[in-house]
Formats: sequence, structure tokens, C-alpha cells
Amino acid sequence: MKLAIYGYGNLGRGVEAAIRQNPDMELVGIFTRRDPAAVVSKTGAKVFAADTISECKGEIDAVILCGGSATDLPELTPKLAKDFCVIDSFDTHANIPAHFAAVDAAAKAGRKLSLISCGWDPGMFSLNRLYASAVLPNGRDYTFWGRGVSQGHSDAIRRIPGVLDARQYTVPIPEALEAVRSGAQPELTTRQKHLRECYVVAKPDADRAAIETAIKTMPNYFADYDTTVTFISEQEMKEQHSALPHGGFVIRTGTTGLHGEHTHRIEYSLALDSNPEFTACVLVAFARALGRMAARGQTGCLTVFDVAPADLSPLSREQLRSTML
Amino acid sequence: MKLAIYGYGNLGRGVEAAIRQNPDMELVGIFTRRDPAAVVSKTGAKVFAADTISECKGEIDAVILCGGSATDLPELTPKLAKDFCVIDSFDTHANIPAHFAAVDAAAKAGRKLSLISCGWDPGMFSLNRLYASAVLPNGRDYTFWGRGVSQGHSDAIRRIPGVLDARQYTVPIPEALEAVRSGAQPELTTRQKHLRECYVVAKPDADRAAIETAIKTMPNYFADYDTTVTFISEQEMKEQHSALPHGGFVIRTGTTGLHGEHTHRIEYSLALDSNPEFTACVLVAFARALGRMAARGQTGCLTVFDVAPADLSPLSREQLRSTML
Repeated sequence: MKLAIYGYGNLGRGVEAAIRQNPDMELVGIFTRRDPAAVVSKTGAKVFAADTISECKGEIDAVILCGGSATDLPELTPKLAKDFCVIDSFDTHANIPAHFAAVDAAAKAGRKLSLISCGWDPGMFSLNRLYASAVLPNGRDYTFWGRGVSQGHSDAIRRIPGVLDARQYTVPIPEALEAVRSGAQPELTTRQKHLRECYVVAKPDADRAAIETAIKTMPNYFADYDTTVTFISEQEMKEQHSALPHGGFVIRTGTTGLHGEHTHRIEYSLALDSNPEFTACVLVAFARALGRMAARGQTGCLTVFDVAPADLSPLSREQLRSTML
Repeated sequence: MKLAIYGYGNLGRGVEAAIRQNPDMELVGIFTRRDPAAVVSKTGAKVFAADTISECKGEIDAVILCGGSATDLPELTPKLAKDFCVIDSFDTHANIPAHFAAVDAAAKAGRKLSLISCGWDPGMFSLNRLYASAVLPNGRDYTFWGRGVSQGHSDAIRRIPGVLDARQYTVPIPEALEAVRSGAQPELTTRQKHLRECYVVAKPDADRAAIETAIKTMPNYFADYDTTVTFISEQEMKEQHSALPHGGFVIRTGTTGLHGEHTHRIEYSLALDSNPEFTACVLVAFARALGRMAARGQTGCLTVFDVAPADLSPLSREQLRSTML
């Protein structure tokens, strides 16, 4: 299967590495909006200017879009979906229906197949919410994120005057996890579910108290959470906080029996050393399914919910039945 | 959707209760090989003689087979698959390919659709093995079962002379779980993964030492495990060991990056108060998908690997995208 990477940041580099772990996949090239001459691939892949991709119709089975959800993907995915099978990791949950509609229309117009919102949340976590709710209808599910770096929250801190650098960890609160696992189906406030740990490098002359207040009172991002702020040196930031770990938990508990007398717990968790590299792995597995479903003549837009699991694996259905069922 | 239950033991009663949790499902009747007049449904469902099911073609969208894998299902599923959409929980892993072939041929001959080996293992655990291996190809997965009652092992103990009743719990060994979670991808022997805890009611005059030896040296069942044998009274058996809890863990760890420098862990676990009731819930969710896929004209035999998750849910694809993705 011939894949192209469009956008070459952390996620694009993750996809490049993931493709090398899948012998049935081949990287045709990396398309970048920077000067291609200034972009060097660590695997020796060819690098092209983004706007030359239209010349490559027919040479690419699927394009993996590695842009951001705020501004890149809402424009890019529908634009490319007319000419290519495209897969993205669009993760602004509230805007998924609109993004889906735009990509679906473009893909149908071009008789192509696309898949949006693929990664771990949305993605693997979404799948686990769906499976668990279908199996235990009389129940409730909870999603916890972390411990892991939130890029959006880190960026929000960096925009505060006097801040040189920042890293924010989202941390699930153990007592909340235990309450959920007990099957009690508790009502939990935002504050009860997650803590926010912030590590900040301040300018030498900055007012640290003012920075701390600005963080802790920031609406949407921090005001509804218990937040800790720790000032550290640039060197400590580099040594202790340069990785991008993440993960989390999807837990559903529910009852069965004629009188709800039996309780069950389904728990799915991820512990990831590298958020972008894991997201990339999910994208590549679903790109395989996308290619197969497109070859069967399907068109329009898909999500992870529409993909039969067997299409994700390099093994045949017969092999899967005899080795994994 | 109109469902029938065929076989009315623990699993059949679990399906009866599960159907009541799904407003889009209706129980047409229970088919039993016992005298129907002697079988009373706790929900007031109609009970019919098993061999009258052929008179109900056209009135049933799917038959949920609730027989055993040793002798019932290998014969029953192919027999019924010609005339009905049938779903079973066939769980003899080694014989799945042969069972699949028989059911597939029968279903195709009758232009019907069937689904086999549905439950939690095979079933939900199989799905998690597949998803995890597709996402992290450079890794290794491990399945642990328990703590839970193994019916097969309990039955094996009951066949020993001098034993009145027995209950066997399969118990995952915490050190093995931790070694797997660490990402070290350890080689684990059978003995290192699970303990077997046996509770036995012996006849008053029985040779307890002989029973203990017979259990601990039984090939395949116990000889390869560290096994504990505890003799208890009939009353204690009834009070402490009448439930059928089970569960377990599917854990895959793997590495990503150009040099395998990042480690990831995917963990799925179940903690079930009632093994048959949870299995029943999985069967009912997949029966929904079976009905939908049959209505789209598919024929032959499926497994859980072939079912797009969206088909399991009573919600529309649009609702799923806006609420669960």
C-alpha cells in the first residue's frame, strides 16, 4: 500500500516511523508546506512541496494528513478528499459532525473514500466507549486522560506575559478512578476527575505570583480544576519535560440480571511514552483498512466506528480466526 | 428485532435478561430440549420444544444458541444456520476453523448469515488482541484469565472418586501481570501466569490426601500449575462459592520510533460478577449487528472481527459520531 504524509511535525515523523513497522506499507513521499529543500527525512524519504500533491493522483493509495485540528484540517481534509483517499486525526469533538459532512460531500463528489478523527481520543477510546455501551446498556462510562502532556494547555500558559516555556500535565485523580471502578456510577465534577500540573520557565524579571494567578484563574483551561504551578529552570524543562507521554482510561460499569443484581466493569487503558507516535500507529492501521474498503468500491467519509476490525490487520481473516479469536 | 433463545441454562437465562435491557429487541420464545411444560420462564416468555423451531421460519430474525461447545454447538449451529440467522458462543479455540467452515457452508446454502464464537473470550478479548496487534505491530500481547470460576476445571474435579462438589478459580499471578505491564515482554511459563485455587466438598469417608493428589497431578488441567486444594463443607460451598464471577486482562506492550525508543501499553480488562450474564450481553449486541448485516444481504459465517462497531449500537451512525467519537 502506497502512503503519503502531508505535514511533517511530530505526528508526521511518527507516521514515517510507523510505516517502517508495517512491511505491507510503503512511504511514497512527504508533502510539506515549508521549503522542501529545508526538510530532511531521517529515513531518506522524498520530500515534496505540499501544492504538488495534485500531480501525484494515481500514485498514492492514501494520504495521511498530519496537520492541526484548529485551522489546518477543517480546510485541508475536504480539499484533498476529492482527489485522494485521506485519513486525518481531527480531534475537536464538538466540530466532528460538521467536519464529517464536509469531508463526506467532497469524497462522494470525487468517488473517493476518507476517514476522519482517527487516533486514540477520538479513536481507540471512542471504540471502547461504543463497544462497552453496546454490551452493557444499563451502565455508565467515564473517560479519564493522563497522566500526560496537553499541548493546548501548555500553549495557553506560554501566551501569558513573562512565561518563556511551559509544560502542562493532565492527571487523573486516583480517588475518582477508584470510585468509578467500584461500580457506584458516581457523579463527578470536572475538579474531581483531573488535576492540572504546570511546569513553568519564567523570565528572570517576571512576576511569578502574577503568572501563577493568571494560570489558575484562566477560564475553560484551568479555573475549574485544582492546578499546581511549579517554576523550574530552562535546563530542568529540557531534561525532565521534553517527552510527550500521554494515556488514560475508558471505564464502563453496568448491571445485568432481571433485577440488576450483577455488576460488571470494562476497563480500557493506554500508557503511552509518545502521544504522537502512538496516534501515528493508529492512523497507519486505519489507513490499511481505508485502502481495502476503497478497493471494494466504498465512497464517502468513514470513522473508526465503520471499520470492521479484520480490515486493520495485515493477516487474512482465516489467519485471524485461527490465531487471535 | 425478534430473537429466539435455543437452550435454557445459565447462558439462556442471561440472554433472556439481556434482551429486556435492549428496547429494540423482542424475545419471541425459548426453545428447549427438555419438556417445555416443565420449563418456566421468569419473564413469562413462551417456551417451545426445540424440534418445533423449524415451524417458526420467518418469525425469528436471529436465534441465539445457548448450548455447550463440547457436543451441542458443533452439531446445532450448522444445522440451524441453513434456516435461521444464528449466533453462538463456541469457545473451543482450536476447533474454531472447522466450526467456521461448517457454519459458513450451511449458511451460504440457505442464503442466511451466522456469527460464531461470540462472548468475551473468544469475543471481546479477541477484538482487543486484534486491535492492539494492528496498532502496535512491534509488540507482544498476553491474555490472563480470572480471578474467576472455570466450569471445565470444576467439572474435572467433580469426576474424582470421593468428591461431592467442587469449584475451581483461575487466578492471574500479580507478579506476572506486573512484569507484562512493565513492557519487558517476558517469556512466561504456564505456571508463572496463573494459579488454580480449588474448593472441594468431599464425601465424609473420602481419602482427602488421595483427592488432593489426584487434582494436583491431573494432566492438562492442573499438573502444569501451582494448585491449592481446600476442603470445605457443603454449606460453605453454597454460601461462598455459588456465584460465577470471571474476567481477565488482555495486555499488549510494544515499541515505536525509528529505533524502538518509545514503549506503549494497551490494557483491556473485565471484572464480571456473572460470566454467563456478561457473555449473554455480548451475544445480544452482536445479534443486533447480525440482523442488520443480514438485512443488507450478506450471507455466510461471520466472527466478531467482521462486524463494524457501529452495527452493535442502537444509536444511528450520526448519533454515534456526535456523542461517542
